[in-house]
Amino acid sequence: MIWKTAITKVGPNHIVTRGYRQEDLIGNVPFAHVVFLLLRGKLPSKEEGRMIDAILTSSIDHGVTPPTCLAARTVASAGVPLPTAVAAGLLAVGDVHGGAIENCAKLLQENVRRVNEGGKSLEETASLIIKKVARIPGLGHRIHTEDPRTKRLFGLAEELKISGAHITLIKAIQNKLADAPVRAKKKALPINVDGAIAAIISDMGFDWQLGKAFFLLGRTAGLVAHVYEEMTREKPMRRLCEIETEYDGPWERNLSI
Amino acid sequence: MIWKTAITKVGPNHIVTRGYRQEDLIGNVPFAHVVFLLLRGKLPSKEEGRMIDAILTSSIDHGVTPPTCLAARTVASAGVPLPTAVAAGLLAVGDVHGGAIENCAKLLQENVRRVNEGGKSLEETASLIIKKVARIPGLGHRIHTEDPRTKRLFGLAEELKISGAHITLIKAIQNKLADAPVRAKKKALPINVDGAIAAIISDMGFDWQLGKAFFLLGRTAGLVAHVYEEMTREKPMRRLCEIETEYDGPWERNLSI
Amino acid sequence: MIWKTAITKVGPNHIVTRGYRQEDLIGNVPFAHVVFLLLRGKLPSKEEGRMIDAILTSSIDHGVTPPTCLAARTVASAGVPLPTAVAAGLLAVGDVHGGAIENCAKLLQENVRRVNEGGKSLEETASLIIKKVARIPGLGHRIHTEDPRTKRLFGLAEELKISGAHITLIKAIQNKLADAPVRAKKKALPINVDGAIAAIISDMGFDWQLGKAFFLLGRTAGLVAHVYEEMTREKPMRRLCEIETEYDGPWERNLSI
Amino acid sequence: MIWKTAITKVGPNHIVTRGYRQEDLIGNVPFAHVVFLLLRGKLPSKEEGRMIDAILTSSIDHGVTPPTCLAARTVASAGVPLPTAVAAGLLAVGDVHGGAIENCAKLLQENVRRVNEGGKSLEETASLIIKKVARIPGLGHRIHTEDPRTKRLFGLAEELKISGAHITLIKAIQNKLADAPVRAKKKALPINVDGAIAAIISDMGFDWQLGKAFFLLGRTAGLVAHVYEEMTREKPMRRLCEIETEYDGPWERNLSI
Repeated sequence: MIWKTAITKVGPNHIVTRGYRQEDLIGNVPFAHVVFLLLRGKLPSKEEGRMIDAILTSSIDHGVTPPTCLAARTVASAGVPLPTAVAAGLLAVGDVHGGAIENCAKLLQENVRRVNEGGKSLEETASLIIKKVARIPGLGHRIHTEDPRTKRLFGLAEELKISGAHITLIKAIQNKLADAPVRAKKKALPINVDGAIAAIISDMGFDWQLGKAFFLLGRTAGLVAHVYEEMTREKPMRRLCEIETEYDGPWERNLSI
Repeated sequence: MIWKTAITKVGPNHIVTRGYRQEDLIGNVPFAHVVFLLLRGKLPSKEEGRMIDAILTSSIDHGVTPPTCLAARTVASAGVPLPTAVAAGLLAVGDVHGGAIENCAKLLQENVRRVNEGGKSLEETASLIIKKVARIPGLGHRIHTEDPRTKRLFGLAEELKISGAHITLIKAIQNKLADAPVRAKKKALPINVDGAIAAIISDMGFDWQLGKAFFLLGRTAGLVAHVYEEMTREKPMRRLCEIETEYDGPWERNLSI
Repeated sequence: MIWKTAITKVGPNHIVTRGYRQEDLIGNVPFAHVVFLLLRGKLPSKEEGRMIDAILTSSIDHGVTPPTCLAARTVASAGVPLPTAVAAGLLAVGDVHGGAIENCAKLLQENVRRVNEGGKSLEETASLIIKKVARIPGLGHRIHTEDPRTKRLFGLAEELKISGAHITLIKAIQNKLADAPVRAKKKALPINVDGAIAAIISDMGFDWQLGKAFFLLGRTAGLVAHVYEEMTREKPMRRLCEIETEYDGPWERNLSI
Repeated sequence: MIWKTAITKVGPNHIVTRGYRQEDLIGNVPFAHVVFLLLRGKLPSKEEGRMIDAILTSSIDHGVTPPTCLAARTVASAGVPLPTAVAAGLLAVGDVHGGAIENCAKLLQENVRRVNEGGKSLEETASLIIKKVARIPGLGHRIHTEDPRTKRLFGLAEELKISGAHITLIKAIQNKLADAPVRAKKKALPINVDGAIAAIISDMGFDWQLGKAFFLLGRTAGLVAHVYEEMTREKPMRRLCEIETEYDGPWERNLSI
């Protein structure tokens, strides 16, 4: 039985990744381009590389409250090695934290494929999605009414000529949603950073199954910083959560042994 | 009680990391420079940024056999979300896998500090370390007699004028070890990629406690590629391990109930 | 904002879990009964407690090849604390490793509910499932044609008078499958330990969403033993995987810088 | 190359753990006894088995604030599978959370060995430890001045005739500490549940390296209950932490691009 892999070949004094010697990549190809190489098997264009770089930076950190950060710092506070705490944080990249990238990219890719196969127009498709999908992933944010990362990422995608049908579609969804009478009483739902990344990686040809990967790669850097801050600045096992808790289980009772 | 953090401040439509608005960083500051910013609180010089970028790339992957990769692909093969599998891989960044960076950086920093405080010379210190430390971290490799990543990283450190006392010290250790009569029967122990990273980050002023962090950050990219390959190319729960196993516990026995 | 929990109330010198003082539970209520208490909020009958105990033991270990064990030992071999390695193993409790309990319990519970609501008989339902479900979770095993754990668990469920509609249904599925002409050329698919646990916990009234939990609880004990064996008996970072690997990515190429 | 293991042997329809057929263990040997078997290679006496059972129950839960629970529920709130969230919680079994068992057991075992090798008496050793060790692991608790679990566990160890030199030593330390003039102004430091478990497993002959394992095994049950409560009772990605946070990094600044 042979285990085939197309990623890296290792021999004595010789390490080849996706066909390139690692010593050639190191310091010559920017890390974000190397990420593209790892995921796609070929080097990106200059524009693609810069776009990936921007996506990674857009995912680095959002303060101490997201589950990734709270989990990482909580685990760090228990006295474990740095990688254990960072990994604990990454376990919180889930369906409702980063997962919108995956779900939104899937939605966009499936619908753009249908458009391309001669179905309805992008505009009609946007209207249809609003009708059919109860909660569209990649729209809305707890804190931001206009996510500054979204605007920047879309501006860059335009500038780098990466914008395509997927970005058009999500923008159409956002616009129609803002106009939709059924939503009249609700505040407009802006495209959040997850939706922006979803649309851009879809226009770049990435499989939606890699949706969480970009968030995860950028966030790892932020988590390292947080875990290090926890290790060097805080006391071990401090109380990270001071919410009042209330026990509402069965009242105290005697055990009949 | 207030939880202070110096990393990121979040307000409506406003995200500031280490003093910079994220929309300013995105696409303008390369990701490797952002990593430096996150860990040090200030932007790197152009040279420092390029050095960090090179270090990240030097850590991306070493094929399917290292514990990080085997753990990640094993967990992926059980049918879990991509981040769960990647995190499982990162848990294997341990004392004997990536840990040499931390231990070597600690050794170099402690000894260079002693030299700077008016102790023995770097050369004398190197000799002393060889005598005292049974197994010097950052030297030797299972496969490579001359690690191609080490050569490239040191060349770059030289070119970028980052080389300093820590690189000098580890090279002195390597050289003295090669000449040492006590080691005469052993093959020379080359500086491996862990040792190279340890010396370089020490010359850049990083705390040795961050040693594993650089390896972890680069390796995350490789693990994403491996987990994705496992998910898309292999059958679930395939046998990843074909070593013959032998049970040598107690012989089968009856339970006296 | 108040965070309500019905599990444990803690005050000075006073810890109450599901209404019982912990000092009353300790040494008086067997651990498997405490597991039931934690998950259901009430103490089990003697029979229910013994059944949970049996389920936990049936999940402890299946040698070194399952993803849980291979992941845990791989991570342990990298030099990390015991809990980090055990947790890495538990991350491999996934859709295709332990997940059959969850999926099978869901299938059984949905169909038994339909039967109870006045639908078809259990026998008819079994036939329908075989027709409709391509691959029925909880049946078949890579190694065992008659899983010794299944027989024992079902025998015990019978003895403890826990057997009900869910066990009847899965046995009907197994029998009809064995007789089905369409499967004539295939070997009979036996109920595996996952299917047995799924049917039993369903007859005990557990939510199928807890399916993986029982496997996880039992397996944790086995993983601790394996990680400890790895730590005390093996060399760090030994090769755990000897499958031959073959790189089939792009052929080595020069980087045009 | 052969990988030897003394834990489990698997063949078709045949699973033997530590020499016993699993179908013989299931439902006949209580789970806590099976844990002993897994870790020690032999079945416990009735008394040892009951003691292990009590230790497991003493570790199940301490409400929502410990790092294990907060990490598990935080990760669960991000929308991941139950085992991913439970594993995240276990990653927080660290040097300052559960770790006292390991450190205390090590301290007790090393000192009792010295006493047995003809050194000072247990009483003298206790005095020496108080003088030499700045912070003795296993003593003191944030909330409990008399941990109800400690009292119960020690009572049971007495009743089951498991008490030996290690329990005597830790009690001597506690008593001398209470009397020590140097500590006169401090409140007495009671033996906490970690110290009690440490002393008992030491008297039972367990390696101190397994210290965290017992805590981990019991706590897994509590974490499953908490993760399930989070999944079924709470909204996804709710704010688990409402501490006020304050950014004290660099003030907002413009990026000179």
